[in-house]
Amino acid sequence: MFEELKKIVFEQNLELNRRGLVVYTWGNVSQIDRQAGVIAIKPSGVAYETMKWEDIVLTDLDGNPIEDGLRASSDLPTHVYLYKAFPEIGGVVHTHSRYATAWAQAGRDIPPLGTTHADYFHGAVPCTPSLTDEQINGKYEHETGVTIAKRFEGINPVHVPGVIVKNHGPFSWGKDAQNAVHNAVVLEELAAMAYITLGINPLAEDAPKALQEKHFERKHGKNAYYGQK
Amino acid sequence: MFEELKKIVFEQNLELNRRGLVVYTWGNVSQIDRQAGVIAIKPSGVAYETMKWEDIVLTDLDGNPIEDGLRASSDLPTHVYLYKAFPEIGGVVHTHSRYATAWAQAGRDIPPLGTTHADYFHGAVPCTPSLTDEQINGKYEHETGVTIAKRFEGINPVHVPGVIVKNHGPFSWGKDAQNAVHNAVVLEELAAMAYITLGINPLAEDAPKALQEKHFERKHGKNAYYGQK
Amino acid sequence: MFEELKKIVFEQNLELNRRGLVVYTWGNVSQIDRQAGVIAIKPSGVAYETMKWEDIVLTDLDGNPIEDGLRASSDLPTHVYLYKAFPEIGGVVHTHSRYATAWAQAGRDIPPLGTTHADYFHGAVPCTPSLTDEQINGKYEHETGVTIAKRFEGINPVHVPGVIVKNHGPFSWGKDAQNAVHNAVVLEELAAMAYITLGINPLAEDAPKALQEKHFERKHGKNAYYGQK
Amino acid sequence: MFEELKKIVFEQNLELNRRGLVVYTWGNVSQIDRQAGVIAIKPSGVAYETMKWEDIVLTDLDGNPIEDGLRASSDLPTHVYLYKAFPEIGGVVHTHSRYATAWAQAGRDIPPLGTTHADYFHGAVPCTPSLTDEQINGKYEHETGVTIAKRFEGINPVHVPGVIVKNHGPFSWGKDAQNAVHNAVVLEELAAMAYITLGINPLAEDAPKALQEKHFERKHGKNAYYGQK
Repeated sequence: MFEELKKIVFEQNLELNRRGLVVYTWGNVSQIDRQAGVIAIKPSGVAYETMKWEDIVLTDLDGNPIEDGLRASSDLPTHVYLYKAFPEIGGVVHTHSRYATAWAQAGRDIPPLGTTHADYFHGAVPCTPSLTDEQINGKYEHETGVTIAKRFEGINPVHVPGVIVKNHGPFSWGKDAQNAVHNAVVLEELAAMAYITLGINPLAEDAPKALQEKHFERKHGKNAYYGQK
Repeated sequence: MFEELKKIVFEQNLELNRRGLVVYTWGNVSQIDRQAGVIAIKPSGVAYETMKWEDIVLTDLDGNPIEDGLRASSDLPTHVYLYKAFPEIGGVVHTHSRYATAWAQAGRDIPPLGTTHADYFHGAVPCTPSLTDEQINGKYEHETGVTIAKRFEGINPVHVPGVIVKNHGPFSWGKDAQNAVHNAVVLEELAAMAYITLGINPLAEDAPKALQEKHFERKHGKNAYYGQK
Repeated sequence: MFEELKKIVFEQNLELNRRGLVVYTWGNVSQIDRQAGVIAIKPSGVAYETMKWEDIVLTDLDGNPIEDGLRASSDLPTHVYLYKAFPEIGGVVHTHSRYATAWAQAGRDIPPLGTTHADYFHGAVPCTPSLTDEQINGKYEHETGVTIAKRFEGINPVHVPGVIVKNHGPFSWGKDAQNAVHNAVVLEELAAMAYITLGINPLAEDAPKALQEKHFERKHGKNAYYGQK
Repeated sequence: MFEELKKIVFEQNLELNRRGLVVYTWGNVSQIDRQAGVIAIKPSGVAYETMKWEDIVLTDLDGNPIEDGLRASSDLPTHVYLYKAFPEIGGVVHTHSRYATAWAQAGRDIPPLGTTHADYFHGAVPCTPSLTDEQINGKYEHETGVTIAKRFEGINPVHVPGVIVKNHGPFSWGKDAQNAVHNAVVLEELAAMAYITLGINPLAEDAPKALQEKHFERKHGKNAYYGQK
């Protein structure tokens, strides 16, 4: 059942590991099949070294398992909420990658300091406010999704494909699992560059607005001319 | 004699090396068999590349060798003391891993800045006070254990599975050698993240108490729901 | 057509990747054959893992393609301008390597702090001023070349084989593609060392003028005595 | 001629590269045979990938070649001077390793912040003063040796097996080439740890004197008990 979807999600979880974004099992990737109403996600706490594609967990759009098997990643409710809140996205990634997590712990947006950033993110990578104690002690992972979605009021999630959850770590997304992993790798690199930049010049300013627009548009705009059409 | 125990300790010493936590011979792993009254530990100053499982040293619970063979790691008396002070633990690790050692040199507790930390450590990773000159010039490695145990008065070593010894480096532990190595890897990553976090925001605060509790409980509490079963 | 040139440029693009200077497709290398009036450059947005030497794009000296094939790197107009402005150079490289890009985002010249720097760069690695909005919204990549060339008024590009484009990243060059890649690797290392140096001592000063001259001359001067003949 | 010596020096030059201490050809290792009056050293500017053991250069104790072959490393006169000034040493290493070079550029001694340092260096790793312009414009590499030796007045080079040459980089030494390379690796790690330590706590103090003595003595003293025998 949904062998193709499971294999894609399996492969992108391995890719996350190969790219150096995870320690042990600290990451998970999902992809949604909106037509079929199915989400495929990494099982909880399973090592990348021993995981098989058959271990990928299938759920419905509310996160309920639709077949016997392993328990889904404990972050599933966040993925589910993001798929509901952002209908344009098809894949979600969560990691504790080193630099992006440090920004989350610092509680600061990652500022758009250069074209590397602007090529992928239209403006800062937002940091969420803290969850309230009620949210934490309630449906925590669901509320994490709520808090992200709220932070994105007025922000287009297609143009800003990632977020920093305060005191926690990054979530990223994209049109499918592969694209979401790609954005997770980019986000980690932007986080590293921004950290070093502020070390060199604590007063470094955002890239000029026109430069940010130019780079975002040349990759994502109507007249994009990066890549092979 | 105790071939299985030796092989476990051998394998976990290699794992420590594979995880990038040691330069040359700067690390050692032990495991205790409390029923048999035997500790197995890395031999002193032997390179990981040439070490064989038969080289692992066996001692009694006071650290006395129980068979002919190589000399035990010079840190053995610290391991011995920790096994006595913390009856719940079954494995001990010592390294000079880069970031955790830097915190030890800085003489500061590693603050619980986020959920990555809270998933494993219930509160800060404590830094010990300095040993006195008398302790240093006496049974130094034993006194290191004494100092760690004293620092843990009021702290549950199962919930805080590691420590930073001032001007020296980290010790970690767990229910067995594998778990202790796992915690050594985590401790190094937390140390790196905390360092970068303070670089971004020198005023970064601890994660909210409720968030720390939530993450620790979802992995280690009665109703833990991380992982399989 | 120009199989040899394509293979050189192909190989140096792979070398850039092997040296850890690129994430995904964030880099490009070109080489010019001034006699034939041909430039060979990486195609835009093509992954290093799947690129074949036949994919390398050939253009004339104005950047117009001279055969059917893939679209050239979007940074081609900058390469073209640099070849026109600096007649002595034969290869150009652009990357978003982590430390050099951080200096670009910090908007600061990389100071000549030591002999590692002086062995390759005669003075600071200059950072360009920002492009104007008109430049950005006009022929952006061409104007990037204009801005670099302007910054080099009074600087010998053979003696300073690289630049930091503000809020963007490094360009480097050399007598051919291989030499330009070599200089890109050196520039990234100098950027890392300078960052760490300022972390240790924010008031670190440039290396003494005589020391800089000595090192530059022993490698590049009339009486150079580094290397074999 | 001196095949064994050449092979040792060859192998240790490769080891330096494997340990990640060199970029391109930025490092060199030598060993002296004091009885035969011969020094073997890396040839200048030869890549590690293509170097053969036969390429290692032999010189007399004044640095004059004693057979036809490649040109010696340009740093040979520094090695020669160190062998004369420090009769106890048998191997010398020079690198531009990242962190140690940053300390050299910062112009600061590496302070003895912990036991990792004290296990190998008895006190700070000294940074030399700048060479005078006369020294730089004279027999520069020879004068580098002179400056190092002068900085070691009152310091035992066996107990402090390395130095930071201001605005340049580290030299290390030992009883033979292998030991000198070992100390180069250690020095780079100490430099990294000290940098991070000061980032966490700019006021971090040297390890207590008694602790430094204890660690140095347990490895190097009369009653050393680290390692086998």
